[in-house]
Amino acid sequence: MSVYLDYNATTPLDERVLVAMQPYLSTHYGNASSRHEPGRVARRAVERAREQVAVAVGAHPTEVVFTSGGSEANNLFLQGAAAAFRTPGTVAFGAIEHPCVLNAARQLTRRGWRLAELPADAEGRVTLAGVDAVLSNAEKPGLWSLMLANNETGVLQEVETIAARVKARGGSAHPGWFHTDAVQAFGKIPVDFRALNRAGVHALTLSAHKVYGPKGAAALIFDKHLDLIPLIAGGGQEGGLRSGTENVAAIVGFGAACELAAERLANLPARLHALRERLEAGVRAFGATLFGAGAARLPNTSYFAFAGVEGETLLSRLDCAGFAIASGSACSSADPDPSHVLIAMGVPPMLARGALRVSLGAQTTETQIDDFVCALKTALSELQKLTALQS
Amino acid sequence: MSVYLDYNATTPLDERVLVAMQPYLSTHYGNASSRHEPGRVARRAVERAREQVAVAVGAHPTEVVFTSGGSEANNLFLQGAAAAFRTPGTVAFGAIEHPCVLNAARQLTRRGWRLAELPADAEGRVTLAGVDAVLSNAEKPGLWSLMLANNETGVLQEVETIAARVKARGGSAHPGWFHTDAVQAFGKIPVDFRALNRAGVHALTLSAHKVYGPKGAAALIFDKHLDLIPLIAGGGQEGGLRSGTENVAAIVGFGAACELAAERLANLPARLHALRERLEAGVRAFGATLFGAGAARLPNTSYFAFAGVEGETLLSRLDCAGFAIASGSACSSADPDPSHVLIAMGVPPMLARGALRVSLGAQTTETQIDDFVCALKTALSELQKLTALQS
Repeated sequence: MSVYLDYNATTPLDERVLVAMQPYLSTHYGNASSRHEPGRVARRAVERAREQVAVAVGAHPTEVVFTSGGSEANNLFLQGAAAAFRTPGTVAFGAIEHPCVLNAARQLTRRGWRLAELPADAEGRVTLAGVDAVLSNAEKPGLWSLMLANNETGVLQEVETIAARVKARGGSAHPGWFHTDAVQAFGKIPVDFRALNRAGVHALTLSAHKVYGPKGAAALIFDKHLDLIPLIAGGGQEGGLRSGTENVAAIVGFGAACELAAERLANLPARLHALRERLEAGVRAFGATLFGAGAARLPNTSYFAFAGVEGETLLSRLDCAGFAIASGSACSSADPDPSHVLIAMGVPPMLARGALRVSLGAQTTETQIDDFVCALKTALSELQKLTALQS
Repeated sequence: MSVYLDYNATTPLDERVLVAMQPYLSTHYGNASSRHEPGRVARRAVERAREQVAVAVGAHPTEVVFTSGGSEANNLFLQGAAAAFRTPGTVAFGAIEHPCVLNAARQLTRRGWRLAELPADAEGRVTLAGVDAVLSNAEKPGLWSLMLANNETGVLQEVETIAARVKARGGSAHPGWFHTDAVQAFGKIPVDFRALNRAGVHALTLSAHKVYGPKGAAALIFDKHLDLIPLIAGGGQEGGLRSGTENVAAIVGFGAACELAAERLANLPARLHALRERLEAGVRAFGATLFGAGAARLPNTSYFAFAGVEGETLLSRLDCAGFAIASGSACSSADPDPSHVLIAMGVPPMLARGALRVSLGAQTTETQIDDFVCALKTALSELQKLTALQS
């Protein structure tokens, strides 16, 4: 078994979550839309999970739309809110957003929408100056999407401040619907939809499999004023906003995972922060450049590179040595280009190609960190010998 | 525990399918897009499932796009193929299609598409005359969607014949992409994508939870000539056609369920057909009107009404007596209107409101059928007494 240090890509399913799901994978197989006892059992389970999800982020159950994943929820906001506009407008988004936000926004250009990419500073924070520049344009964006925490760097974005500024300066003609992708932040730092909503955030994305829940369940939490055209039309499930037979077991697991996520917030972040300090002391000693380390970051994420060492090569050696880490984000693994996040931060492409992401989680131990640092040292020195031989 | 007679709404998960899924709900939790050992384990599982799904319908694994459900797959075809057209065209679809096809098609009118609803005859079959009428218009439809078997009546549609006619008469200017929703047909009758494709079908939808697989996995099987814009944009999974972290366990379950579905075809349909005969002899004796019984039907589905008896009332009484059946389709259960399928068949709305669907499956027994017929008799006579008292 590998030492798993890639929790931002996905997390192991918590055993308690699996126990909660099991009945819905066997005895309670009803369709939640069916009007008979097996259907009602499934419906009650879905509605209980909706409450658990809502409670975890300070939302109301009626503000929760279940989707099959974070990518779908982000697309539901961008495409669904855009489709409700009478005429195409501008969509503003961070240059450091997840590919599912970037590509959903780009896809809107097919329908006449214009793009306003918000630049990031050298630490990976979307800048207020960039937001102000967009707000000073004659046409204010109709849609905004800015993530709470970046999946690669872990860097926190000033979402409340920026949403408040958009709300204050957006003007009355344009609603300026504001969305935040909270997939990476949730479970690692407190996420409060009510507070965000007061500041001017109208929608927020969560995903189960990043918080020890199952793959296949996620949610868009949304302000009821937001007008959304469904991405998946059909039988009218989820208040007409997301048709399709509810994935009952996964939704039940999502609910259970949300409850546990709230509990974990008490101790896990501090423990992971200490482990990351230990890790980063190690990699700094080997001469690593750390990305985003000057900004407020998620406690579990470390992103670094060694000048002249290809990230892919190092990743592959560490994989052989039994350590599972990432180079750039897992979702764009088919993509050989350097990380768009690092490029947006002004990191030279050569150095960006060296990027490795280590993300810690509930099962990470001090021993694993020490073993990893040791394996990294070995891999680095082997690669340096090879390079010396070749030159 | 209820006697479950609603297999067209959803099916219990086969124990063997759950066994196949279990490792991916515990030990093998990797993200299939991650480039390390846990990721590769997940990737191999997804690709093996893709082969199992492909084999079950005579397709090639590269022709399989996994989605979260049948509704998503149907929307991917309709919205995705429509988005690839330079200018809006006409979308033709059966009047008896599932709501996710009807509503996805209706949503296309927001983008300027026109609708051509193909009428059905009194037995619930889309007519060749209706298809010919649409094909005689100056503008041939750019998109077609016609289901293989209807979810309410079980009536089989002449998809091969109609697709061949569209192919022959569609003209060269318009591709006339032809899709079939095989969600209800698959596992109950043989489904051969290669044969359908030769006739002129370009895409086909399957869903796991209708064939004793899990909720949360489905597929669009598609001809590579078909140009599709993804419904969910993002990290580029599924060859760029469906982004989002793969729901590995559900996909594995879908693959296993497809293998079992092929095995079941040898005996189950004949057994269910005999059970349905037994059921229908019973309901006919009580004076039921059977819908679609004059057409070729799926062997497991029975759809009927008793004049003057509300379907909802009967459903509710049978539910109390411990029998789980449907009135109209489960997906439109929030909808108080009579079934659009029956209306399309020319059934008077009063009679349509009485419709009950009984759909049989692998666990259905002769005793269950006899008990159901007995319970139905009791419920009917009680309701008739009540009506007599009220009048």
